Amino acid sequence: MTDTPTSTDRDRTETDATTAGADREPLFDRIPRRDFMKAGAAAGAMGSFAGCTGLLSDDDLPSAADVGATVEPGEHDDYYAFLSGGHSGEIRVYGIPSMRQLMRIPVFNTESARGYGYDDRTSEMLEDAGGYSWGDTHHPRISQTDNDYDGRWAFVNDKANGRMARIDLTYFETDAIVDIPNQQGTHGACCLLPDTKYVFGVGEFRVPMPNDGRDLDDPDSYTSTIAAIDPETMNVEWEVLVDGNMDNGDGGKEGRWFFATGYNSESGVSESEMSSSDTDWVKAFDVPAIEEAVEAGEYEEIGGVPVVDGTRGSALNSGDRPVVRYVDVPKSPHGVSVTPDGAYAIASGKLDPTCSVIDIETLADADDPNEAIVGQPRVGMGPLHTAYDGRGHAYTTLFIDSQVAKWDIEAAVEAEPGSEEPVIEKIDVHYNPGHLIAAESYTADPQGDWLVSLNKLSKDRFLPVGPMHPENDQLIYIGDDDAGMKLVKDTPSYAEPHDASIVSADKLDPAKVYDPEDYDEEFVGPDESEVVREDGRVHVKMYSVRNEFGFEDVTVQEGDEVTVTVTNVEETPDLLHALAIPEHDVNLKLAPQETREVTFTADEPGVYWMYCAFFCSALHLEMRSRLIVEPAE
Amino acid sequence: MTDTPTSTDRDRTETDATTAGADREPLFDRIPRRDFMKAGAAAGAMGSFAGCTGLLSDDDLPSAADVGATVEPGEHDDYYAFLSGGHSGEIRVYGIPSMRQLMRIPVFNTESARGYGYDDRTSEMLEDAGGYSWGDTHHPRISQTDNDYDGRWAFVNDKANGRMARIDLTYFETDAIVDIPNQQGTHGACCLLPDTKYVFGVGEFRVPMPNDGRDLDDPDSYTSTIAAIDPETMNVEWEVLVDGNMDNGDGGKEGRWFFATGYNSESGVSESEMSSSDTDWVKAFDVPAIEEAVEAGEYEEIGGVPVVDGTRGSALNSGDRPVVRYVDVPKSPHGVSVTPDGAYAIASGKLDPTCSVIDIETLADADDPNEAIVGQPRVGMGPLHTAYDGRGHAYTTLFIDSQVAKWDIEAAVEAEPGSEEPVIEKIDVHYNPGHLIAAESYTADPQGDWLVSLNKLSKDRFLPVGPMHPENDQLIYIGDDDAGMKLVKDTPSYAEPHDASIVSADKLDPAKVYDPEDYDEEFVGPDESEVVREDGRVHVKMYSVRNEFGFEDVTVQEGDEVTVTVTNVEETPDLLHALAIPEHDVNLKLAPQETREVTFTADEPGVYWMYCAFFCSALHLEMRSRLIVEPAE
Repeated sequence: MTDTPTSTDRDRTETDATTAGADREPLFDRIPRRDFMKAGAAAGAMGSFAGCTGLLSDDDLPSAADVGATVEPGEHDDYYAFLSGGHSGEIRVYGIPSMRQLMRIPVFNTESARGYGYDDRTSEMLEDAGGYSWGDTHHPRISQTDNDYDGRWAFVNDKANGRMARIDLTYFETDAIVDIPNQQGTHGACCLLPDTKYVFGVGEFRVPMPNDGRDLDDPDSYTSTIAAIDPETMNVEWEVLVDGNMDNGDGGKEGRWFFATGYNSESGVSESEMSSSDTDWVKAFDVPAIEEAVEAGEYEEIGGVPVVDGTRGSALNSGDRPVVRYVDVPKSPHGVSVTPDGAYAIASGKLDPTCSVIDIETLADADDPNEAIVGQPRVGMGPLHTAYDGRGHAYTTLFIDSQVAKWDIEAAVEAEPGSEEPVIEKIDVHYNPGHLIAAESYTADPQGDWLVSLNKLSKDRFLPVGPMHPENDQLIYIGDDDAGMKLVKDTPSYAEPHDASIVSADKLDPAKVYDPEDYDEEFVGPDESEVVREDGRVHVKMYSVRNEFGFEDVTVQEGDEVTVTVTNVEETPDLLHALAIPEHDVNLKLAPQETREVTFTADEPGVYWMYCAFFCSALHLEMRSRLIVEPAE
Repeated sequence: MTDTPTSTDRDRTETDATTAGADREPLFDRIPRRDFMKAGAAAGAMGSFAGCTGLLSDDDLPSAADVGATVEPGEHDDYYAFLSGGHSGEIRVYGIPSMRQLMRIPVFNTESARGYGYDDRTSEMLEDAGGYSWGDTHHPRISQTDNDYDGRWAFVNDKANGRMARIDLTYFETDAIVDIPNQQGTHGACCLLPDTKYVFGVGEFRVPMPNDGRDLDDPDSYTSTIAAIDPETMNVEWEVLVDGNMDNGDGGKEGRWFFATGYNSESGVSESEMSSSDTDWVKAFDVPAIEEAVEAGEYEEIGGVPVVDGTRGSALNSGDRPVVRYVDVPKSPHGVSVTPDGAYAIASGKLDPTCSVIDIETLADADDPNEAIVGQPRVGMGPLHTAYDGRGHAYTTLFIDSQVAKWDIEAAVEAEPGSEEPVIEKIDVHYNPGHLIAAESYTADPQGDWLVSLNKLSKDRFLPVGPMHPENDQLIYIGDDDAGMKLVKDTPSYAEPHDASIVSADKLDPAKVYDPEDYDEEFVGPDESEVVREDGRVHVKMYSVRNEFGFEDVTVQEGDEVTVTVTNVEETPDLLHALAIPEHDVNLKLAPQETREVTFTADEPGVYWMYCAFFCSALHLEMRSRLIVEPAE
């Protein structure tokens, strides 16, 4: 009960080899000690850390309590983590290092406990954004100012329906969704730094443009786009169409470059076609050059937005300035992330065991974009995503090897392409990691203590719960370069976190009570309850407070369209009420000082007990009012 | 970082007193030491435990690791906990003692990551059960055989829409929902033991019977019912209508009695009317007597089911045998639970500081049901629910005091009514607990080690996440009567767990892979993909496997009604696929060997990339097929 397993003593119990790596030998049996010494020596030469790691015995490793992973009852976590929920359509907020789930934020799904998609405001927002009942969230990114988290918003994509959503971090609520024209499979999401001028939606699926029935079986004419979205208005300002598919993206730190990885430079439509080439691209979008093109009218308006041609044959604006630079990297690269100092964009090879280190300054100047590739370390099988600790190290998930590789960025620049020497240490994860995220890795100043590996399979790591297993989000301590990475916690998670952002707790300042100035609905105070009837419509306005609603009963006629506006007039934090109406599919969440409206048709005569669904006091059960629906004459 | 806070050293930081107890002094400053000695002496006299507790210093208490609360990475939990999700409409599965959420099971809500409510089978099930998009789950109860968990089913109520659902514990999936006639606000749910002959739905809200527009403003004629549901068929076999509201219920261990608490013996319709009387009832339903009445035709058929009159004036069957016995207990009693030995039903006073101990054997024989009240200990303010450790102790949540009181059941029978002497110890919880649950408390053999207090407010216990706070499910170790109760973990939880059942891990045997014999959809093997077109309908049958669907593309006509049947032919556990169709609101979850069907209209021409939404392999992104919708002529 005291020492957690480490990479050297894993007790592997699974029997199904789902990947090439699943039945491999333990790491330290496979990689000669000499290789680690070399890696240590190379890294040591950079002066960036103390020396070789990974060779300590279990007894030398710190315990979970020693590394500060224990959050006792009543203590607060040090960080917020925002995890995507994949095809659950939501965002989840965890505390780090406890790995406790603090809150869910429905985004593209409806969710009754929050009344999200039930009150008129949120249901109209979802309807205006296409009327879908779900989405596929992948990349929660937090707004930044001066390359640091500013606590304003989180953004997240919908891969299923080509959308981008914004979450207000004052209220931890989704407050805007834009349906991105011309885009199917919006996969990547990220901000243009340092100040979040744009949020980028990265379109993955190549489709006819516009996708209205033309060019159905002419895949060569299919295209994908990136979309630049204004974070304040959530308007799509412009798009750029490109060759090939794109998946992930990241912004540089200086307001100029935006990078997207991609696969299928072959323009194929089957799996074998899509993965036949040995190289694909990192696309580097030169934002000022694109803005120049838009300004000069060098675009076609499609779906209501200016679309700049960024395909390889046409990727110059009228000033002969490239709007997109295509960098050849092996093979179907998946993740790309910019180093905290803004020097490099690092792409992971997915179907190639290397990462490609792209020097951003070189990229701007070189005639051949490929000259910007200044390092290509061999990190392991199935590299997907890379995070940073702020001490010069990169951490890359190895999907096939089920490991995280820690490597030295400058050592990779110094080393020969394909060298394993920059690799410092590997740790087993369980199993098949996709993204990983280090604390504040997406800022200019990562914290360097905690890393979370978002593993796609958990197999036998938890009690069995039927054929659908949880994923496994593993917490790894990376704060001690001498002791090496330490696996601290396994955390089962519901399908499917793809990516996350980790933010220091002191950078957010959420409200505990609503400010009625922040929403449009009419605040209904204790003396302001009324029923307004006109033109066959009934508008009920009432307050709620422990332990009553503004009316003991409300009588309407069968067939009436009824709008209920209800305010929670409590001022005490955490004292929520709800308005649930049986057999009418209505539930409103009402936090202190919050007002929501709902409109429904009273279509069946009878008595319906409207009740509070949050257990709010000892007289909670008695907090009810009758909706009396009289039969039509 | 080593010792958890205990009830004696709580660092209280909240500023808002939401209850009378929120700013009280620490427990041990308020209750004289002598009272604890008395309690200890009384209990000691019973020989049921070693002696007085709660007086140890912090240094004497076991650490979290000492009590076995630490579940290291890769280790399994000892128990499953099934928690209700309140108005989220779902059930959640936790591991105990890690308090990690292992899985969510959507029940009355739709949930896209599982495709629940998206495939034809589950969407038809939800439509047949009323077509609502949410529900309000409170009481997850697990089927038993011979008073022990048999691993077959969980059942849970829907308070919002008067329903009961069944969850298949082989697949951890909701497989049946019944819309209970004549019932609004189905609150309690529980099983008739020892062998789960019936599942009882306890109707809370009094409404006209039937609720079709009659008697709208004649509250005296309103009624509520209990419904006896056959667990195999999920048919409602019979109902009993009674006076007053009911909320919680529990079954005796011997197949005869079923108990329900209730409030509003006043038949009021406002909060003040409902809570004016100093006593309300525990209703004891004599199941064989009810069955006799049904057999003898002594019922009215309402809403398609036999309804026996169990109101006070008429609660005798033709053999002069009471079908319902009304026991007067103070005041608006909330929870009721039967002791593991089947001897007592214990009801908690809610608006009265006592619990009432009802002797079940006496109840059967006495002329006056009130003679069955054999104990009435004063446990504290706002007693709501009671759980058991199997060593003769009861644990009662005190909503207003924000505590759990541990008391001795036999001491309560020996003591004068209203005595505090049976109370052994109290522990602070944070804050305002509703239910609590001990490991296997609902069986004849509780495990006596872990207790979870499901607290309604968390206030400042976690990082702030906006105006909607998480609840707080606190893990308490109760395995050492000498050392006393020990608070081990705070667990934030999404709104709103009301109740839970905790089951030893070895009593469930979930499947890891589907058995195609267990469902009706047609298994589509690798050689069996086909497209069948007839009468303007298109039926696409295809398999899925890493990294492809059975067809690279499928062409249909604008306006076609399309059914897609898709099988995941994988046999390896945890290798799930999904079928997501952009802009068609379709997502199917496909665990290994699972087949699902979905039907939709292809109403917009264009190319839509059907894709796998579970990250299933390194070529997951390439696992796609085109749905080509040709424009109508």
